[in-house]
Order: sequence, then C-alpha cells, then structure tokens
Amino acid sequence: MNALQTPFGGFVAVSKRLTGRFAAVRDASLALAAPLTEEDCCAQSMADASPVKWHLAHTTWFFETFVLEKYEPDFRPFHPAYRVLFNSYYNGVGEKHPRPQRGMLTRPPLALVREYRSDVDQRIGKTIENHGHEPEFRGLMDLGINHEQQHQELILTDLKNLLSLNPLAPVYRAAAAQAAQSGSPLSWVGFERGMVLIGARDDQFCFDNELPRHEQYLGAYALGSRLVTNGEFLEFIEAGGYRDAGLWLSEGWNWVQNNGIVHPIYWSREGDDWREFTLAGMRALDPRVPVSHVSYFEADAYARWAGARLPTEAEWEHAAVGYPIEGNFLDDGRNHPAAAAAGEGLAQLFGDLWEWTSSSYSPYTGYRAPEGAIGEYNGKFMVNQYVLRGGSCVTPRGHIRASYRNFFPTAARWQFTGIRLARDS
Amino acid sequence: MNALQTPFGGFVAVSKRLTGRFAAVRDASLALAAPLTEEDCCAQSMADASPVKWHLAHTTWFFETFVLEKYEPDFRPFHPAYRVLFNSYYNGVGEKHPRPQRGMLTRPPLALVREYRSDVDQRIGKTIENHGHEPEFRGLMDLGINHEQQHQELILTDLKNLLSLNPLAPVYRAAAAQAAQSGSPLSWVGFERGMVLIGARDDQFCFDNELPRHEQYLGAYALGSRLVTNGEFLEFIEAGGYRDAGLWLSEGWNWVQNNGIVHPIYWSREGDDWREFTLAGMRALDPRVPVSHVSYFEADAYARWAGARLPTEAEWEHAAVGYPIEGNFLDDGRNHPAAAAAGEGLAQLFGDLWEWTSSSYSPYTGYRAPEGAIGEYNGKFMVNQYVLRGGSCVTPRGHIRASYRNFFPTAARWQFTGIRLARDS
Amino acid sequence: MNALQTPFGGFVAVSKRLTGRFAAVRDASLALAAPLTEEDCCAQSMADASPVKWHLAHTTWFFETFVLEKYEPDFRPFHPAYRVLFNSYYNGVGEKHPRPQRGMLTRPPLALVREYRSDVDQRIGKTIENHGHEPEFRGLMDLGINHEQQHQELILTDLKNLLSLNPLAPVYRAAAAQAAQSGSPLSWVGFERGMVLIGARDDQFCFDNELPRHEQYLGAYALGSRLVTNGEFLEFIEAGGYRDAGLWLSEGWNWVQNNGIVHPIYWSREGDDWREFTLAGMRALDPRVPVSHVSYFEADAYARWAGARLPTEAEWEHAAVGYPIEGNFLDDGRNHPAAAAAGEGLAQLFGDLWEWTSSSYSPYTGYRAPEGAIGEYNGKFMVNQYVLRGGSCVTPRGHIRASYRNFFPTAARWQFTGIRLARDS
Amino acid sequence: MNALQTPFGGFVAVSKRLTGRFAAVRDASLALAAPLTEEDCCAQSMADASPVKWHLAHTTWFFETFVLEKYEPDFRPFHPAYRVLFNSYYNGVGEKHPRPQRGMLTRPPLALVREYRSDVDQRIGKTIENHGHEPEFRGLMDLGINHEQQHQELILTDLKNLLSLNPLAPVYRAAAAQAAQSGSPLSWVGFERGMVLIGARDDQFCFDNELPRHEQYLGAYALGSRLVTNGEFLEFIEAGGYRDAGLWLSEGWNWVQNNGIVHPIYWSREGDDWREFTLAGMRALDPRVPVSHVSYFEADAYARWAGARLPTEAEWEHAAVGYPIEGNFLDDGRNHPAAAAAGEGLAQLFGDLWEWTSSSYSPYTGYRAPEGAIGEYNGKFMVNQYVLRGGSCVTPRGHIRASYRNFFPTAARWQFTGIRLARDS
Repeated sequence: MNALQTPFGGFVAVSKRLTGRFAAVRDASLALAAPLTEEDCCAQSMADASPVKWHLAHTTWFFETFVLEKYEPDFRPFHPAYRVLFNSYYNGVGEKHPRPQRGMLTRPPLALVREYRSDVDQRIGKTIENHGHEPEFRGLMDLGINHEQQHQELILTDLKNLLSLNPLAPVYRAAAAQAAQSGSPLSWVGFERGMVLIGARDDQFCFDNELPRHEQYLGAYALGSRLVTNGEFLEFIEAGGYRDAGLWLSEGWNWVQNNGIVHPIYWSREGDDWREFTLAGMRALDPRVPVSHVSYFEADAYARWAGARLPTEAEWEHAAVGYPIEGNFLDDGRNHPAAAAAGEGLAQLFGDLWEWTSSSYSPYTGYRAPEGAIGEYNGKFMVNQYVLRGGSCVTPRGHIRASYRNFFPTAARWQFTGIRLARDS
Repeated sequence: MNALQTPFGGFVAVSKRLTGRFAAVRDASLALAAPLTEEDCCAQSMADASPVKWHLAHTTWFFETFVLEKYEPDFRPFHPAYRVLFNSYYNGVGEKHPRPQRGMLTRPPLALVREYRSDVDQRIGKTIENHGHEPEFRGLMDLGINHEQQHQELILTDLKNLLSLNPLAPVYRAAAAQAAQSGSPLSWVGFERGMVLIGARDDQFCFDNELPRHEQYLGAYALGSRLVTNGEFLEFIEAGGYRDAGLWLSEGWNWVQNNGIVHPIYWSREGDDWREFTLAGMRALDPRVPVSHVSYFEADAYARWAGARLPTEAEWEHAAVGYPIEGNFLDDGRNHPAAAAAGEGLAQLFGDLWEWTSSSYSPYTGYRAPEGAIGEYNGKFMVNQYVLRGGSCVTPRGHIRASYRNFFPTAARWQFTGIRLARDS
Repeated sequence: MNALQTPFGGFVAVSKRLTGRFAAVRDASLALAAPLTEEDCCAQSMADASPVKWHLAHTTWFFETFVLEKYEPDFRPFHPAYRVLFNSYYNGVGEKHPRPQRGMLTRPPLALVREYRSDVDQRIGKTIENHGHEPEFRGLMDLGINHEQQHQELILTDLKNLLSLNPLAPVYRAAAAQAAQSGSPLSWVGFERGMVLIGARDDQFCFDNELPRHEQYLGAYALGSRLVTNGEFLEFIEAGGYRDAGLWLSEGWNWVQNNGIVHPIYWSREGDDWREFTLAGMRALDPRVPVSHVSYFEADAYARWAGARLPTEAEWEHAAVGYPIEGNFLDDGRNHPAAAAAGEGLAQLFGDLWEWTSSSYSPYTGYRAPEGAIGEYNGKFMVNQYVLRGGSCVTPRGHIRASYRNFFPTAARWQFTGIRLARDS
Repeated sequence: MNALQTPFGGFVAVSKRLTGRFAAVRDASLALAAPLTEEDCCAQSMADASPVKWHLAHTTWFFETFVLEKYEPDFRPFHPAYRVLFNSYYNGVGEKHPRPQRGMLTRPPLALVREYRSDVDQRIGKTIENHGHEPEFRGLMDLGINHEQQHQELILTDLKNLLSLNPLAPVYRAAAAQAAQSGSPLSWVGFERGMVLIGARDDQFCFDNELPRHEQYLGAYALGSRLVTNGEFLEFIEAGGYRDAGLWLSEGWNWVQNNGIVHPIYWSREGDDWREFTLAGMRALDPRVPVSHVSYFEADAYARWAGARLPTEAEWEHAAVGYPIEGNFLDDGRNHPAAAAAGEGLAQLFGDLWEWTSSSYSPYTGYRAPEGAIGEYNGKFMVNQYVLRGGSCVTPRGHIRASYRNFFPTAARWQFTGIRLARDS
C-alpha cells in the first residue's frame, strides 16, 4: 500500500490515553531512523520509494495540515514551503513537489526536520489539552496515528530497496538468525460455501476502504496452512518456472521477458549458493523461510505451477477473521519473515508478509468517499492494483486487522509480499 | 476484447446448417475488405491494432491449425511459414511473428491471402462432410466461426484507427446521416437487491470466460436508461472535466497529464465547431449520438462528474438478461452509434457501443481453462483489464449475448466504447 | 545522406538535352518500383526510412514546389493536401506530415501517385519549352534531377530494411552470384604531406556543402587498397571484437551493450554458417565481398582492432580525385557490393559501398547557405553526423563525384556503408 | 569536459614543490565541500552529474590506483570495494559501479571518505619522499593533480544542478552582487589568414588530446570582443528565437520541441522579471553578465540569429595564445561569470565561461593514445561531442591554458558554458 492512499477512518476508537498513544507512535518513527546516517535518510532509490527523511516530514505535515490548521488558534505553518515539499498527493491542499525528486531535497537537513517534528509534537500536545474530548478531533488524531504507522512500514520497505542497491550490502540492524527448525509441511484448511459478512465492524478504527460491511456469497474453498517458502519457490525456479510462458498471465510474461526476471528481486546467486539481501545484511537463503518480495505476477505463476490459485480477498478475510492478531511484526525487530511453527489451522496470517489476493482493488458496494481534502483521494487508487492482506514483519503490531486492505500494482516487488495458496473445494 | 483472447466455447450450439453458417461468416469477412485497397489492408497503425490482411489470414490460420490439422488426413499446411506469421499468441503452437511488425508483412500479398482463404474454405467444406455430425468437431467449428466474428469487429476497429491518422480523412463507406430526432432524456431504471445468477446458460454457444454460471448477491441499484451522449460529454469538457484532478482516478490523471488528453480520441475542433472522425469520414459532432471511443479513465471521470458511477458487470448482466438482443449492429452497415429512440426501460443495451463496467476482468469462481493450445491462454488476460458488455455497432448481430464478456486495458480508446451510468438505489 | 538534406547546387551544369535527362531520371525511379506490389511500396520499416510510394511522390512534390510553382503561369497544385503530405522538412514551405507516420498513408493509392507523377512530368515538359534556356531554371532542374537520384538510392536502401524484417526473406530482384574470384590482398597506397585543394570545381553540378573549394594541409598518410571484406570482419568477430570494450568509442560501447549488437545488421547465423540478407534474398556470406551495413561505431572499432584508423574526408578526397568514376553502381543491377578485382592503386573508391570517414559533417570555411526555402536547411544537418564518401552499389552512376559529401549519424546501419582503412605514414 | 576523460599528460612539469602542490590541491577539494552537509554531498541530480562525495572519493581512488598501486611496496587498498565503487570508466582496472546509481551510495558515509582521503594523502606523502625525483612518477602526480582540479570544477557544476532542483533555492555560498558597471559594447577583433601552429607546447603539462602540436591553415576571421550577455540573449528570446525553426540545426530544433525549451536552464520568470539560479541563490537576471549554461544548440542558434557563427577551436586557440591567463576563476570565489570590463582586444577569454566552438571533438593528426589503463580511454570520447575552450568561473586558475580542450555533447546545459561569436573577415 501506498500509506498515503488510505487516510481516512470512518469510525473512531475512543481512547483515554491519546497523548500517550500519540507520543509513542511519534517516538517509534524516530527510533526507526536511529541506526541511520543523514545520508541514508536523504536518498531515494526509485520513484515508488521515498527517503526516510521525507517520511518523517510528511507524517508531520499530515498532523500540521489536517489537525493544527483546523484546531490551532492563530495557526501558522512551521515553514510555508513545507506545505508543498511534504504534500504527497492531496490536490485539494495545493501544489506538490514531484515525487521522483524527493531525493533531491538535501535541504531542509535532517536536523531541521527533527525540529519540525518537535515543534508540531508540542503544538499537538497543547491541542489535545483543548480538544482531546471531541470525537471529531479524536478521529483525526486516530487517522494521523494510523497514517504514521503506515509510513513506519514504508520507511523500512523503502530503505531496504535503497540499501540493496549498494554493493557494500549494508546492515540496517543485525538480527540473530532464526533458530534451527524443521519447517512445517503444507496442509489445507477448508471453508464451507455460504453468505459471509465482509468489511470492518463498527467498534474499532478502520480506513474507509474497509467499509461498508456487506454480505457476499462464497463457494467452498481451502487455504494453504502457511506461506510458500523459499525452498518451494526454488523448486519452481529449478523446474524452469520463469521460462515457461504457459504458467504466466500474458502481461506477466511480457514483464518477465522485458525485464529479464529470473528470481525474486533481493535474491542473488554465487556459484551454487543462493543468497538473499535482508535488513540484517546479506544472508544465505533459508529454505524454510517464506519467499518474500514477489510480484503479483510471480505469485500467480507460482500458484498455477503448484496446481492452486491465489485466494480472493473475501476468502482471506472470512478465513482470518476468527484468528487472533499474532505474528512476526515490526515490534519484534526481526524485519524479516520467519519460518512457520508447526501447528494446526492457518499459520502466518498476520505479520511476516503481506499476502497477494486475486482481487482487484475496487470499492465495496455502497462505498462513499469522505468530504474534503482528506477524502479527496480515498478511492483514487481503485484501479489496476491488487489487494494484499495480513500485514508484514515491518507492520506495527497494533496497526493490522482482518478487514485491512492493502494494495499494490501487479509488478511491484519492493514490498514485503508473499504467497498463500488457495483452491476450490 | 482482443478477439484472440477468448477462443474456447464450453458448450456446443447444434446447427443443421453448419456449411451455410461457415460460408456466410467467411464471406462476410471478405465483404468488409471489399471497399479497401491492398495498401489499406496492409498497414498497421499501432501495436494494439492489426492490418486487415492479417485478420483475414489469422482467422484462416485458426481453422487450419485447430480444425484441419486435427481432422484432415495427410494434413499439410498451405504454407509452412504462415504457421508463424499468422499465429497470434498461442505459445503451444510454436513461434509467433512479433505483433508490432505485422505491418511489415507486405508479402504474402493480399491476393495470396485470398488464395489461402479459398484453399482452407474448400478443405473445411470436405471436412464438414466427414465430421459434421460429431459434437466435438462442431464445437471447434463454432469456436472458429465466433472467433472470425470477433475479428470482423476488429477489422473495422483497427481500420478506423489507421484511417484516422491520414490527413485526407478517407471514407471507408459513406452512410446517410441519422434522421433528425430529438434525443431521449436520461432516466433511471431500478433493480431490487438479492441473489442473482450470473454467467452463460448451457443451451447456447459461449466462451469459457462466461462460465461457470454462479450465484452472486447484488444490492439495490439503478442504471441509466441510455448511453451518455456527445452533448452530455461536451458539457463535461466545457465544465473543465479534463482539467479537474478531483474527478479522476490517480492513474487516470497521470494518463491525462502525460498524454495531453483534452477530448475523445477521434474528436477535433475547428474554430467553435467540433468534428468527429467516423468510418464515413469527417462529420460534425452530433450531440444526440452516444459519446464513443472513451477510455475507462474517461468513462469513470465522467460518471463521477455526473454524480454517478459505472455499473459492475453483474449489475449490467442482471439488467440486460431479460431484453431481446436488438440494436445497431455491424449488419446494419452504419458503423457508428446512433441516437437512442424514445421509449421505456433500458435502451441501447446491445449494439451501438461496448459499455465499460467497473469490474476488473477476472475468472468466475470455479473457472477452469480447457486443455491444450486452445485453452492455453483462456485466462491469460485476466489481470489489469476491465470488462465491457453489450457489443457495438461493428459487432455482428448474432455474436453477442447478455453474458458476453469483453475486456480492455483502462487506457484503450480505439475500441467502440461508451458510457452507461449506474447508481446505488 | 538523407537525400533531402543537400538540395541545392551552387553551380549549374549546362546540358542541351535537359528534356531527355529529365525523362530518363523520372523513368528510372518508376523502374525501381516495377518489381514491387502496392503493399511493398506503402510500408515504412522505421522512422528513418520512407515508403517507396512516398519517395515517388516527394520527388514529384519537389519539382512541383520548386519549379512549377515558380515558372508555371496560373499554377495550381495537383492536390492541395500533397503540399503537406509529401513535404519532407522544408519549414519555409509550410506544414509537414510527421515522418514516422508515412507508412499510414494508404491513401493516396500508388495509382494516384503515378498520376501525380505523369501530371507533373507533362507540365515540366511544357515549362522546359518556355524556360529551358534560362540558367536559373536549368539550375533548379539540375537540382531536382540530382535530388531524385538521391531518392532512387534511398528507395532501395529503405526497401532492403523493410524486406529484411519479413521472415519470408523476399527477393527484390534475383542476381547472379558473383563469379568465383580469389579476392585481392590488402595493400597500402601512400600520399605525401602538403597543402591540397578540397571541394568541388566550378565546372560541374555540385551541392552547396561541397563549397567553397579551399586549401587544407594534410600530413603524410596511406589508404587501404580496397574495402574491408566480410572475411576480415568475421575475424574481428571471432577474435571477440564485439565484446572488447577497449576497441570501442565510449558511446559506441554503450550502443553495442544497450542494443545487444553482435554482428552487422543483415547478417544471421544458422549453425556454423553465416548468411546475409540481400536485395536478391538470403545468401551465404561471401568472405571476399566487402562488409556492408556497418555503423560508424563498428567501422571505427574494426579499424582500431586492425591497427589502423578511418580516413579523414580530406584524405579520401585528395586520394580519389585522380581516379575515374568507375565501379559497381545502381545501373549495374547487382544491388550488392562485389569483391575487388586484383590490380594496382586504390580499388572500389566509387560505388560498392559508402566509406565512413572520421570527419564530423561541418561547413567548409566560408560556406554560405543559399537564400529561401531551398537553402533553408542546407546546413541544418551539420552536427553529430559523420561524412561518407564514394557512393554505393545503389547510387546512380552519374550522381557521384570525388567531392561528394554524404553524412549519417554514428549508429546508422541501414545504409550501404563500408570500411576503408587509413594510417599515418 | 568529463574530467575523467582526459587523464594523461604527455609532458611533465618539473616542480620542486610537489609535496606542497599536492597538499594544496587536496585541501582545495575539501574546502569546496566545507559549506555542505552530508546530505548535500550524497545526492545525485542526474546520470551526467555525480555526488560531491563521489568526486572526493574518486580523485582519491585515482591516486591510489595509478600511483600507490604502482609505487607503494606491499600495496593494499584502503577498502577493496572502493576499487569498484569509485572507478569511473577505466575498464582496464576492472568493474565499475553504474554511474546513474552513484546517489545510492549512502555508505560509505562522508566521514569515511574523508578518512580514505587522509590515508591516501599520507601514503602519497611517503611515496613522494621515495620517488619525488623520478620523472615518470612526477608525471603521474601531475596527472593526478590536474585530474583533481577537473573534479573541483565538476563538484560545483554538479552541485549547482542539484541545488537548482530544490524549491528552497539554497545558497551554496553568498557572494556580493557585482558592482554597477555599464557593460562594454561588442566589437570585433580580426586575424589574418595563414598557417598557424595548434596544440600544446612541450614545456608545460598538458593532456594528450592537446597533442601533437601541428600546422593548420586558417582563413581570415574575427572574434567577438567579449562573451554574449544575458541582455543580448534576452533580445533573442523576445524576438522569438526559440520558436523560429529557421535558426536551429535540425537536431537542435527537435531538441527544443521535444523538451519544451524556452530559455536557458537556470532562468525562470516571475511576472515580467527574469531570475537566474546561481550558487549564491536566486538572483535577478543581470543583463550585463554573460549568458551561461547554454547548450551547443542554443549557442549555434543565437550566433545564426546574430548574423555570426561560432569559432572553430583552431581560430579560438590562435587568437587566445597571446593573451595572459587572467580572468574570473574558481579561486575568486564568485562562482558566477562577471560582466566584461571595458578595454581593447579580446576580453573574458579565460575564466567566466567555457566557450563553445563549432569543432567536433576529434584526434589531432598523429594523435597516439598512451599505453595501459591510463591511456585506455583517452580517445574514447572523440565522437559526437564539441570542443569548448578557455575555462570558467569554477575552473581553478592554474588549470587552464590556450591549448586546453574541453568537450561536451550538444545538448548539455548544466556546464558553465557561454557564447563567443565569430565571423569570416
């Protein structure tokens, strides 16, 4: 997901401890940048990714623009130019700095962006004192907090792409290799056909694209018990999967041919050994760990080769809704998916990797965009993208839920994306 | 639709008069080329479009490859190289000539392609004598006949694009301008919520993407009584529709900006007057006639501006299934949409223009691709394309039905595509 | 050379038989098209090349625009739209049809272009009667005749590129393979240092880029006695020439890498055997025949590999000026270079292949462009192109001379270009 | 000039104070970076430009690779990976990091690059003690010093491009606006025709492309007494110069049209006022100051509009050789061209701006590339580039001479390039 693409929450989670939650999420963003130099925070690896510094500033801009400007008496922006520099796509707010040139913003320096954060944090603190009991204000704050969580995830996603381009293979944060574990075999978990309810419930925060909750009819189906592993994906490669046109969607095959794709983006080969670039540096490929950073095309081709298919987003949500939100998240500091533990039922639903579904991202029946600039672009991305579910190892734990809809174009690979198989039953 | 993309029919229409039907469809293709020179038939306007000569050869190749090669004793191809030259995308059949270079095929000359057609027609005639009673053979023949009908439509679609690039604005076939008529006002026709059956019935020919017939739940909705007109679309233009980012999907806005799009592709302006290039040459824009050759992005933006939305394909099919298949088709020789007649209910459902739906083209639950080369690519196009329904003024009358699914990418404009509005109710 | 780029001649060749010369050159153009179908004449293989029909019309447009419009009383164009359609780049004359879309001009049909030619021929005939004695008129006619000769060469050059893209490898005109001959060894012919005169003399027709005749100082040098052969170029390939960065100009190396160049454009390999596409169809590569259709980059890299260099244009002209203009030309109907005969001195200077020089195409000191539209673009191409000398096997015999300057960009390969070596001595 | 493109000097300047000269040039590079943050030093604005940090490292790599590796006993590189990371194009030395990805090198951090510099400086110091008397060693050191000076110039050139992309218009170093001065009128300084000597003399350091010194014949000509000013160039713009195809080379006109060029790259307009981005920030355009950052195409079109032409490089050198090397250089700290002072003869020959010549960059007759990796690419850039002469306001004073040949492609604008007019006389 482009975190900037789903800003609005239709429902408001009431919290007594807004001040604390706000401070915690703001601190967490800075903590992510702690191991990084100014240079690491400034560079942009491609148009789809943004510099860490930009993420730190943009999330601040969001609070300044959508909260302070509305609630602060005698509002004055920290710096007038930041209105343009750190706007992402909100045309209703005015001009935007061109996305592919975010890496050119060597000024303001990181230190000044930190000041910008402090200043806004302080002013938000005062504003909470005056308006912290108002539902609409709290709704906006919840939105800002969730928005910042989305960008925490993007900070690591975009950073990984940047570091991967450096022949020195820099380590963002060292992490212990996973303890030896045999890996669990893939089994299938079935679901009956029938009418199901899809979409967010009305007692928690959600984004507007999860609404309205609505009925949908599902045929009988089964889901793979865990994510597809590196070892399984290697079999696909060794069986010639990337060279067999019959396994690919037509557009996917063109993509493979035109870009010379022969393995997942962060894999490389040295002699007979496969390696994988991670946020803990270059590592030997662990066959038990889920295959990550695959495009929709690769996920779809693998599923076809395996005699299966990808789940629809409704199938996924219906299956996931009864499971607790547990898993390998950003908070665990691993920043990499982990092998599934043995066990019954569906493993790895939450955390580890976003799971591609076969569902094109489109509005639920009856969807209504909110009014104003905040709602301006809510549905703007509902075309030519596919829905992903479940969060990843760089998603903050409190951010995800079963109804959460992430979305990316079919060729995107720099996200923490993985494969769960499905089949009719 | 890329006619080459939905080759297989799951059900067989039994016909006593196969020989006659085959001859009729083959003659109809040649009749389309009758007003054209060798040069008109050879040129290719862009990678998405093919030369008329190529269509005439490829449809012949289809019968030769999928019928004669299987049923003819001592089969020998008319010319071994044609196997490559006139293959469209069937990897299972072997090599393909690159699509963007079809206009380079000045050889074989048109006369030789006509010989190729005659030769295959004759051999198919004999084969019908021997196998015309066999259901499987009849199924393949029905598929070939429907495939050729799809290409008849593409012959005119592609030709229109080619002729539009010639400053001489050549006339393909003169047509009387439509008799004066006042145009009917737009009204809304409502449908109740509930479970509906979607997909082809089992008593007629269909393509495999229309199967399986399955249940789907629909909320209450209403459809516009007719297609959006040129006059209505002009209001959108004059209201600044092409310059208002708020009306467009994000990807659509990029498309508008990057390509400098300010009106439908075949429109042009001379002073205060709008003109439209048609297969009958350049004409003054008729405000009562449906707006044609709009992309998905333009259709979606117009609908948003009009306070409405595009229908889903299930909404469209459920609404259309009770209507007779009547309208302005290829057989009428007008080759251009016509103003809607006054009347009750939904007008222009069939013929006139393919209607964009908001549904991404994807497999129906339980979809299975047929075996072998014919089925090889059936589902290959089910990504990043959107479904269109109802046929157009260049669709052969007998080719269309309520369950028929056409599909194109969101930026495609050279097709005969139009806009029907929908809304929740 | 782009034939359209050097239209004006500063000096006028006086001829008693202008009518006959005009008729002969006009007939010769039609004769080149005689073996071709309407389809062959209409297609355009790439933006750099033009359809045969376009050449036939453009040369006619040239006489109509620069001769008839000036000399014909009550001048009216054959068709007003042709003024735009068949203009090449003369901004002074008005609008131009976009070059890459010349292949879209299926109308006017070839038959109408022939009528256009007849009509203009007739009117030019009458105009000669009235003005044939006037020097300025004769100068314009000489220019038109030479312009048409340039396009005769381009007709075959462009056609070869088109036919080469057809997997059927069509034969334009069958030609007997060259009689067995042993091939002559390469020797060196030396020239003293000193001041030389470069540029056209004032007693014959020339283009303005050959003027003014001027002094230039040359160091001592030697030229290879004949063109580099296919056999010699094969040695370069087999020695890894296309893979050795050290042999290439930096921009040339990028060109090789980015385009995956591994052999001359019309060569192909079948097993161990090399073949070459020619206007007489596909043939086994003859090692004694000069290597043709090489870019400046390939010529320069070969020369470096061979321990030599390319000649400057002044070196070439000084060496060639004493030789008779004999060689393998268009008039010989071979349409392919031939092996050099054994002999003394420099062989193959004229005809066979245009010879790359190391001289960037720039104005001679004191160069002045003529007035008006004819002169408008005379110097317009004097940047980023390199000079070629001597004509080729598709140049009309009477068209070439020692001072003649042709020019192409460094990556161009579709021309009949070859390599003559030089070295300091 | 790509500083990396002319590494070798054929002649050795003997200096007693090598240690001092080395230290001075190394310090000067660091001084240029002093006003910059780590972020400023890391970003890359386009493929043609490099980050400041990269320049600091590459110049160090040059001394390490071409001096220490040869002369240091028990040589070990500072870091093995730097061999690849900071190689520019020397294929003979091994792999290179892709040029467009230099901005991705957030590691090594600037601090480590400074350590790299210190380490190599120290080791070079020791090596001077042992080999400072050897001519070949001194030649390599001179080469390294001149190479570093070239990169000092590029540091500011590339930085200016980067800062210009920041809407904050950052100031690199404040500079007093030039004192009021009336500006000198343009006059012409003439030169007789005759044989002249071109190329470097043998008693000072030079690059190999300035050799061999050789005779050349020049016709009579005159040069403009000073550079073309902003005010004069504004007249060209206001006269429609950017919209008049007749003024442009054909390739230049395409460049103008395709890129929408309407003024020099760092100019902008605010209402009726023109502004210019400089290294001292955004400023009002001073009409007396030389127009800078123009492409060859713009320089050539302006000259044609002014009824003049650009000088050849031989004309420029012959005119300049008698003038002292005085002017507005990097050492003056202005970092911007200055208005010409009134006076006789030719002003602004050295410093201020590199002056485009009409000469394509090619080897002098008898040119020989040196052996080995250093010479590997000396002539590699002698195609499709044009020669510039005289140095600019960011060239170190001691670096320039009359025979110095800089070179850039015809569309380059980010260099400090200007226009001196010439004409035949």
